[in-house]
Amino acid sequence: MFQVDLNSDLGESFGNYKIGMDKEILKYVSSANIACGWHGGDPMVMDKTVEMAKKYSIGIGAHPGFFDLMGFGRRNIDASPEEIKNYVKYQLGALMAFVLSHGEKIQHVKVHGAMYNMAAKNKKYADSIAQAIYEVDKNIILLGLANSEMIKSGKKLGLKTANEVFADRAYNSDGTLVPRGIEGAVIHDAELAISRVIKMIKTGKITSITGEEISIKADSVCVHGDNPKALDFVKKIRKELEKESIRITSISNFIK
Amino acid sequence: MFQVDLNSDLGESFGNYKIGMDKEILKYVSSANIACGWHGGDPMVMDKTVEMAKKYSIGIGAHPGFFDLMGFGRRNIDASPEEIKNYVKYQLGALMAFVLSHGEKIQHVKVHGAMYNMAAKNKKYADSIAQAIYEVDKNIILLGLANSEMIKSGKKLGLKTANEVFADRAYNSDGTLVPRGIEGAVIHDAELAISRVIKMIKTGKITSITGEEISIKADSVCVHGDNPKALDFVKKIRKELEKESIRITSISNFIK
Amino acid sequence: MFQVDLNSDLGESFGNYKIGMDKEILKYVSSANIACGWHGGDPMVMDKTVEMAKKYSIGIGAHPGFFDLMGFGRRNIDASPEEIKNYVKYQLGALMAFVLSHGEKIQHVKVHGAMYNMAAKNKKYADSIAQAIYEVDKNIILLGLANSEMIKSGKKLGLKTANEVFADRAYNSDGTLVPRGIEGAVIHDAELAISRVIKMIKTGKITSITGEEISIKADSVCVHGDNPKALDFVKKIRKELEKESIRITSISNFIK
Amino acid sequence: MFQVDLNSDLGESFGNYKIGMDKEILKYVSSANIACGWHGGDPMVMDKTVEMAKKYSIGIGAHPGFFDLMGFGRRNIDASPEEIKNYVKYQLGALMAFVLSHGEKIQHVKVHGAMYNMAAKNKKYADSIAQAIYEVDKNIILLGLANSEMIKSGKKLGLKTANEVFADRAYNSDGTLVPRGIEGAVIHDAELAISRVIKMIKTGKITSITGEEISIKADSVCVHGDNPKALDFVKKIRKELEKESIRITSISNFIK
Repeated sequence: MFQVDLNSDLGESFGNYKIGMDKEILKYVSSANIACGWHGGDPMVMDKTVEMAKKYSIGIGAHPGFFDLMGFGRRNIDASPEEIKNYVKYQLGALMAFVLSHGEKIQHVKVHGAMYNMAAKNKKYADSIAQAIYEVDKNIILLGLANSEMIKSGKKLGLKTANEVFADRAYNSDGTLVPRGIEGAVIHDAELAISRVIKMIKTGKITSITGEEISIKADSVCVHGDNPKALDFVKKIRKELEKESIRITSISNFIK
Repeated sequence: MFQVDLNSDLGESFGNYKIGMDKEILKYVSSANIACGWHGGDPMVMDKTVEMAKKYSIGIGAHPGFFDLMGFGRRNIDASPEEIKNYVKYQLGALMAFVLSHGEKIQHVKVHGAMYNMAAKNKKYADSIAQAIYEVDKNIILLGLANSEMIKSGKKLGLKTANEVFADRAYNSDGTLVPRGIEGAVIHDAELAISRVIKMIKTGKITSITGEEISIKADSVCVHGDNPKALDFVKKIRKELEKESIRITSISNFIK
Repeated sequence: MFQVDLNSDLGESFGNYKIGMDKEILKYVSSANIACGWHGGDPMVMDKTVEMAKKYSIGIGAHPGFFDLMGFGRRNIDASPEEIKNYVKYQLGALMAFVLSHGEKIQHVKVHGAMYNMAAKNKKYADSIAQAIYEVDKNIILLGLANSEMIKSGKKLGLKTANEVFADRAYNSDGTLVPRGIEGAVIHDAELAISRVIKMIKTGKITSITGEEISIKADSVCVHGDNPKALDFVKKIRKELEKESIRITSISNFIK
Repeated sequence: MFQVDLNSDLGESFGNYKIGMDKEILKYVSSANIACGWHGGDPMVMDKTVEMAKKYSIGIGAHPGFFDLMGFGRRNIDASPEEIKNYVKYQLGALMAFVLSHGEKIQHVKVHGAMYNMAAKNKKYADSIAQAIYEVDKNIILLGLANSEMIKSGKKLGLKTANEVFADRAYNSDGTLVPRGIEGAVIHDAELAISRVIKMIKTGKITSITGEEISIKADSVCVHGDNPKALDFVKKIRKELEKESIRITSISNFIK
C-alpha cells in the first residue's frame, strides 16, 4: 500500500496579528509544523495550535526558524553552526512544553524558511539541526527536503528522517529544487502538480526540469493554508491521492 | 540535621553582553536559576550555563521572566494569567531542551523579577505559574517566596514547593517582604543577615520589622553573584552555615 | 464655522503580518497616527504609510507605544517617566526620518494603547510625553484624550494641544471615559454615536453616563479602520458631519 | 596643516547590560558613532550618550545596524536594499530626536558591523545607505570605509563623505581591508599601527600587504574603547599624532 503525509506550517500568527487559515487546513493535513515564537507564533498561539492539532490527531512538529519576526524567518542570517544548533533546541524545547501539557509527543522537527534553505545545502547547518534533535530526543523525526543535506545529516546520526517534496516545484537533475525565479521553477497547473506527486509516491521517480528521470522519496508533501486558493489545492490533492488509494497518514505511522 | 539550599540567578548574559560572575558563584551555590532568553540569557548562554551547573552537580532550575530585555524583566507588565501561564511554559520548555541534551533534569522553576513580585501577591498569577509547572512536569519543584501566594498555589495543586528567603531583607509581620525603599527594608550588615538566616533555618522563626516573632520556612536562600562583594557574602554565608553544621544541598535532596 | 479632525491609527502592519484597511480609511480621515515600530509598524510599513498619507494630504502624526509587539502595546508596562519620555522621542524621531524623506512635517503625536491610557490619568507620564514632544520640536501638536492629564501637561508646557473624543464611548461626569466593561461604556448605536459627536462639536457639551451636561472640547474624533463595519461608520460619520456643515480638516488647520 | 578625526563606536550598552568605556573614550575622540537601538543602545542610553558627546564637543553620528541584538549586529542578514535604506532612516531619525533635544545636529552616519562590511563591497547596499542619508538630510556626512562602495555611492549622490581608516588592519592592493583570519590582517604592534596612520595622513599612501604603495585618504581613524588596552592605544595615538602636529578634530570641521 502506498502512503504519504501531508504537512503544513501552522501557528504562525503573533499577538494581535493573524495569519493562515489554521482551523481549515488542519482538517486536511496529517502533520503540523508549528511555529515556535521566533519567526512567527507566540506562546498563546502555540498552546492553541497544539490543542487543535491534538483534536484532529495530527502529527505535531516543531517549526523553528531564525529570530527575525520582521523578516518572517525568510532572510538568511549568517549564524554559526553552534548557534543554529542551540536555536533549534531552544524552540523545540519551547514547543515541547505545550505538547507535554496536552499529553502529546513531538513527532518531528522541520526547520523554517531561510534556515531550511540554508541547511538543505550547507552540511554544517544540516549537522547542527540533526544534532539538536538527536541530543534533545532521538525519537523525533527530522523532516527535511528530499535529497538534501538535512536528510543525509539525520541518517548519518541515526535519526529517523522523512523526505519532504513540493508539489508545485520543479527539480534539478541532482534532486535539488530549482530556485524560484528561474523559468519553470514553479508549477502553476494544479493537475500537473498533483500527478507529479502521485508519480513520486508510486514510483519514487520524478522528471527533472531538464527531462531526466531522477530518484526521489516522497514521505511528506508540503501544502499551504495561507489563502482560499491554497486550501482548495489541499482539498484537491487529498481527493486525488485517495482516488489513487494512497493513504494519507502522519509520518510517525510509517517512518521507522 | 539542618539543611538548606543556596540558589542564585545565573545565565543572564545575552549575546555580546556579559553580566554576573557565573563561573565563580557556581562553586558556592547548590541550585541555579537559569534565565530562559526573555529577560536575559540566550540559547548559547543557556547551553553553557546548564553545562557548568551539571559540572558542579548543582540543581538546575528554569528562571522565566517577562519578554522585556530592555527592562531586564524587572518591570510589571499587565499580562493576563493565561499569558503568564504560557510564558512560563515556553521558557521552561526551552531550558528543558538544554537540560535533556546534557542528560539532566529540571529541578525547579523560580520566576524572575517583576513576575516573581507580582505572583507573590497575586493569586491568579501564582496559580498560572503553578499550573504551568504542573502541566509540563508534576515532579518539578516550585521555588517561590516563603509565605507567598506562589507557595500556596503550588501546594494547592499538589506540587512540591520550596520556600525562598532573603538574607538581606526585612519581613513584615504577615511574612511578606518589606518593600525596598521603606526604611529598614534592606539589611546591610552581613553578620546580622547571616545570623537571621541561621535563626530561620534552625527555629523556623524570624523577627519581623515591627518586632514580632513570625513563622518562616527557609528551604532556600537567594544569593547573588553580580559583583565581588556579593560573591564575598556567598563565601561568608557558606562558611557560617557550615560552622553551624547546616548542610548546604540542592532542594531536590530534601523537598519531597 | 464648525470644524473637526478625524484621526485614525495607521501603519500597524508588521513584516509579513497585515492589519487594518489603511488604503481605504485614508480616504476618509484628516489625520493619521502612524505606528513607529514598537507596538506595530516597521520601517517598510512606516515609509509606505507616510507616502500614502502625503498622497491624500492628511496630517501626519507619530503614534508611539510600548515595545511590546506581542501585546500590541495594549498592556500597561511599569516604565519610569524618564523611560516613557525617551521612548516617545525615539519613535517620534524614527517617524520623522520618513516624514522628512517625503518632504513633509510631523503634525502631531498621539501615544498608543496602554501608554495613552496610563498617561491620560498619570500626571508624570503625561508630563513625560509633553516634554518629549517639546524637546524634539515645539511646533508639534499633542493629540490626547479630551480633559486628560495629557492635555493639561501639554498646555502647561506651552505646546499646542488637540482634544480627542470618542464617538462610541460614554463619559463620566468628570470628563473621563467610562472604562470598557462597565455597563453602558460603549455606544453601539451608530446614529446615537454620531449625534453625540455633533453635539460635542457644536455645543462643547456632552451628556455624561449619569445624565449631567459636561464640558468637552472635540478637536479630533478617533475612528477605526480595522474592519469593513468600522469603515462604514467612518463613511457615515463623515457624511453626517458634512450635512451639518462641519468642516473635516487636519488639526494643524485650526489648532494654534 | 594636517588634520584627522578619531571616531569610536559608543552607546552600545542596553538596559541592564553595560558595554564599553564610554566615559573614558569620549575624552580622546573627536567623533562618536552612537548606536541606535537595533544592534545595541536603547533610548535611555542614546539620550545619555548624546548628552556626554555634547559635553565634550564631539561630532555626533548615527551608528545604525541590523535588528540583531543577539548577534550584536555582526551577522550578515540577507535584507533587501530597500529594507536597508529604511532601516538606516529609522535609526538615524531615532537618534536625531535625541540630538535635537540637546540642541545639536547629526554630523555623520556610519553604519555598524555586518551592515558596514556588506555595504563596503555591495554597491546596492552602499547606494541604500547613501540614499537614506540624502533623503533625510543632505548635510549629513557619510563616514565609510576608505575606497569602499559606500564612499563611491555617497560621492555619486553629492553627499559629503569621510574616509575611515583602521590603524590595526592591513590593506590589499586594491585598497580594501585584508579580511580578519588571513595571516597579517591585524597589526598587533601599536608603534607600527600608529606610524602607518601618520603615513596615511601625511602622504595619502599606505603599503599594502603585498608591498605596494597604494592611495588611501585618511579622514577618520576608527578607535575602540572596549577595554583598558584599547583605551591606552587611543591615548597613545592621540599623543603621537599631536607630536606630528596633526590636528585632531571632528570631520565636520574639514569635510566640505
